Parts: sequence; structure tokens; C-alpha cells
Amino acid sequence: MTAGDPIPPTIEWRDGTVQLIDQRRLPEELVMLECRAVDDLCAAITSLAIRGAPALGAAGAMGVALAAATGEPLEDAARRLVATRPTAANLAWGVERALAASDPAAEAVRIAADDVARNRRLGAHGAELLAEDARVLTHCNTGSLACVGYGTALGVVRAAHDSGRRPSVWVDETRPVLQGSRLTAWELRRLGIPCTLVADVMAGSLMAGGEVEAVIVGADRIAANGDVANKIGTYPLAVLAHHHGLPFYVAAPLSTFDPDCADGSQIPIERRDGDEVAVVGGRRLAPAGVAVENRAFDVTPAELVTAYVTEEGVVRSAAAALDSEASA
Amino acid sequence: MTAGDPIPPTIEWRDGTVQLIDQRRLPEELVMLECRAVDDLCAAITSLAIRGAPALGAAGAMGVALAAATGEPLEDAARRLVATRPTAANLAWGVERALAASDPAAEAVRIAADDVARNRRLGAHGAELLAEDARVLTHCNTGSLACVGYGTALGVVRAAHDSGRRPSVWVDETRPVLQGSRLTAWELRRLGIPCTLVADVMAGSLMAGGEVEAVIVGADRIAANGDVANKIGTYPLAVLAHHHGLPFYVAAPLSTFDPDCADGSQIPIERRDGDEVAVVGGRRLAPAGVAVENRAFDVTPAELVTAYVTEEGVVRSAAAALDSEASA
Repeated sequence: MTAGDPIPPTIEWRDGTVQLIDQRRLPEELVMLECRAVDDLCAAITSLAIRGAPALGAAGAMGVALAAATGEPLEDAARRLVATRPTAANLAWGVERALAASDPAAEAVRIAADDVARNRRLGAHGAELLAEDARVLTHCNTGSLACVGYGTALGVVRAAHDSGRRPSVWVDETRPVLQGSRLTAWELRRLGIPCTLVADVMAGSLMAGGEVEAVIVGADRIAANGDVANKIGTYPLAVLAHHHGLPFYVAAPLSTFDPDCADGSQIPIERRDGDEVAVVGGRRLAPAGVAVENRAFDVTPAELVTAYVTEEGVVRSAAAALDSEASA
Repeated sequence: MTAGDPIPPTIEWRDGTVQLIDQRRLPEELVMLECRAVDDLCAAITSLAIRGAPALGAAGAMGVALAAATGEPLEDAARRLVATRPTAANLAWGVERALAASDPAAEAVRIAADDVARNRRLGAHGAELLAEDARVLTHCNTGSLACVGYGTALGVVRAAHDSGRRPSVWVDETRPVLQGSRLTAWELRRLGIPCTLVADVMAGSLMAGGEVEAVIVGADRIAANGDVANKIGTYPLAVLAHHHGLPFYVAAPLSTFDPDCADGSQIPIERRDGDEVAVVGGRRLAPAGVAVENRAFDVTPAELVTAYVTEEGVVRSAAAALDSEASA
């Protein structure tokens, strides 16, 4: 890994196939995975070879395009794709967009191109929120790898960096799957943005020590009332930020807002295999047979969110975000 | 590992040597480590073969006894022992006790025997705080393995269990060293107490879901004003418990209270090697060269502590605990 190396697109439609970065292999090696059928792509999503709400939006659309290319019934493919990750709003959004299009492949390519453009606008809006030398704490991976490119919450930091501010990032390692240490630290080093990796449990110590100016996270689904489902561990950060009087920003494209979901209690929370917790780095570190509860997401109530950063601007409520979408 | 198997003493003085459970090897195997010289014991403490504030109290005393047995200068041995872990109050306490005794080995044996008796009394006092079927969330390891025997915070759960209440435990895995998954889950399975392992980041989701009745943790040092240094990640739990109106109990023997330390800002916080975070299960999972900040402890302000559970009873302030010590 060399600082300054570009980060390729997370997912691309190429000659009737889907090419994606196999994120299970990072940071050790940057290798691509090719999916030629819907089931290949479903397996890639389930195993977290590709993850991140905006990236899953593009993946959903490309999955429908794969079904069209291979002659599979579209509705059945759509159902299987949406079932892979129940929490991310963008996945169903991408699937629906491709299903409604006359040419699913062309629509998937459009969604992928739009993703990068939207994230750049989102980043530029969010960068205005950060002071010079802001020390930003973030959770999970919301960078280029969570999208087709550029990033959402990490895109805000990137835009601040590109505009000459000097942000630095506290990178939560993000147990159990370690998207922070494996992916976010890798991206920030490629981008040349200063970062320091910490165990998730250190956020309280950092905030109490006055070492954090802002928390910025992404989102997997935002309900109509503004409640935010995001990676497990996001809600404790929101409570800690509130306790310390620090701003807590949620950066997400409008495709993450779900107007049909009234509040956080209606967001389905994915439970994943306990071995993600019990087996660490390929080694079982908990006693055999111990029960494990492994929720992939938690819900942060709207009242703990200082502002939502979208491609249409920074807004104080989900209603305002949805209004900006309607008028965009 | 078989449920019901007894848990041997964590550390013992035997024939001029120190015998201790090598906790680096748990939960895979239960093996003893023998220390014949002060440097062996210092290495065992530094590498976390033995850890836990009360256990370190006994270890400190036995270290001085080792120096006496091998003819090393006692003051020099004491200095090296205390320097191994700067945060735990009990380590210096045990060293001082043995230094002041005419027969350090006899004093070390007395401290070890006292530890178990004190913890049983502490547990009995604390058990009164727990409702039937209480779901207790705990952090790190505060069981038999953190002491000579029985446990402090986990001793409270154990005493409740033994008295016929039916507590169950949410076990925080406790990154980065995973004392929760490796040690606490192992102990609770041996004791037949129901437990569920969770990533540390899940505490917020559990509290928001009404799935926790109390948080109980141990302590490495308690300042005169009641501020508590404990395993990194404790402070976020205290903030979360406060936010949800849940009791937050600190269980610690009186040897953990440091009347010479005015408040938490004066407690030295140990920083450990970043590889504890970056290398997981023997495998490097963060990009090479990434900066890591790895504080072993954080400080919970006294105002977030509902009560302190000691061998002399349950008290609302550190001053009351120190008074009970003086009158005991």
C-alpha cells in the first residue's frame, strides 16, 4: 500500500458482468471479484465482499441488470437481492430504480456515476461544518469503499482536506467486522489524510480529553422522523457526543432516507453470525459454545443528530432533506 | 472446558515460587506459569499473563517475597514491580504491605487468603442490589481471574446466583485484549451462570431496548473524590447508563481506593502497544504503519457512579468507603 495510490471504483458494470473490490481481502491486498450471475452478487453482498449503503444501491441496480443479461426473472432476482441485507435503504432503492427502467444496465451505470457526483456535492456541503484542524471521530467505513467512489462521512473529511483545511481522523476500528481498521485506515492513508486508529471503546476517553471536535458517521437508513440506523456502535457515539456537547453529524445521500418508514422502531435490524464476534482474525477467542448476540446496526434517535449532510445541503431534519429531494 | 469445573486460584505462593494461571492461554487451555525471580513476575504482569487489580495486589506482595527469598534488594524489586502497571492502585498497595512486613512471604500469603474472604463479603453486599432475573452488563474481567479468587463485580453476580436469584450477564468482549470473551465468558460457563457475549459497541442497543437492569464494573484505582479508573470503555458505559437511567455500580475492595489521589485527573493512565489494536488473533488487520492510540484505562467521574460495592458494604461515596475502612 502506497500513500497517493488512487482508490479504484468499488463496483463497476463491465461487459455484462459486475466487477467489485473484494473488501474481505483488504487491507492485505486489493483484488477484484467478478460476478456473472445474481447469486454471485448476492453471495458477495452477504459475505461483505461489498458493503456500505450507497455501494449497495449501485449493487442492487447492477444485480437487476445481471438478471436481465442472463435471462433470469427480474422480480425473483430483485427479491433475493433485497433480502441479502435488510437494513440498508439504498439496496432496495437501487433495485427499484433498475426494475422501473427500460434498460436496467444503463440505469445501473447511471446510478454508479451519479453516486460519485452526489458524494462530491455532499462532501463540499459538509466540509463547511468543519473548523480548521478539526479532529473528527468516525465509525465504520463511509469512504470510497462504502460507495461507488469518494465517500459520504469520509467524503466530508476528504472535501475538507482537499479544500485546504487540515482535518485529522480518529478511526474507530469498528468491531466486530473491523471496517474501520481494515478499510477506513487504508483509505485515509492512500488519501494522505492524518488518522489514528483506536478501539471503539476509546471514544469516551477522547471526548472527555477534549480531543474531538466533531463526530461524523454515515447511515444505512434514515426514517421519516430522522431516526438513523447505522453500524452498531453509532448510537453510543451519539450519546457520548451529546454528553460532551459535541456536534454529531450524519452524512448520507438522499437515497438513504426512507419516507415510508415512520421512525427507527420500524427499521429492520440485521442480526449476523455470532462467529463474527467469537472468531477474531481467524482464531476462536471465546470459549466454544458461548452464546453471542451480534446486531449489525443500532438506531440513533433524531434528537441526538445535530444535522444531516446530503448532496442537496446541510439540513436539521429528515423532513427538510426529503423536501430538498422533492424540489431538486 | 467443562461447566462445573472449579476455577483454581489465580496466583499462589508455593515453596519460594509464585505459581499463576497464564491468562494469555485462556480460554484455549488452563496452564500454570511459575515465577522464580522478580523479573519473571514483572514480565508476567507486563504481558498480562496475570492482570486484574486485586490479583496484582497479591502479585505485588509475592514479588517482594520473591526478592526476599532470592536475596535481591527489596526496594529495587518494589520499584520495578510498581512500574509494570502504573494505573492499578492495588499493585503498589500489595508491594507496600509486603515491604512493611517482617516476613514478606507470610504477608503475601495473608493478602491472598484475605482477597478471597473480602471478595465473598463484597459479593454478598452487592447481591442485595440485584433484582431477581437481573440482566447485568459487565466489562472486562472482574471474576476469580482478576483476583486471587471469587471476583469483585463478577463476584456480585456470583453471589446473587449462589443465593438463588437468577442473574444473567451481557459480557462485553472488551477490546483490545478481549478479557471479556477470553476470560469472563470462560468463568461464567464454568460457574453455570447464563451469559451472552457481545461486542462492546452493542451496549447502547441493549440499554435502548430495555435489556439491561444494571451495569457492574470493577476498578483499578478510585480517587478520594470517587472518580474511577477502570478498563478503557468503562466511561462510555457510565454515560450510557446515566442516559438510560440505569444504575452503574463499581465493585472494588478497599485496597483499590487511593486517598492520596485527589481526583481522576491525577490517576496515571497506562498507554500500551498499538499492536494490541492492530494485530487481532495473531493477524495484522490494519494497514502497516498506521498510527494507533491505545489507552488501557479511562476515568469515570464520581457523579456517574450510583454506588460503590466494597467488602464493608455498599456506599454512595469514596469518602464513605474510606471511613468504613478506617472503622473496620
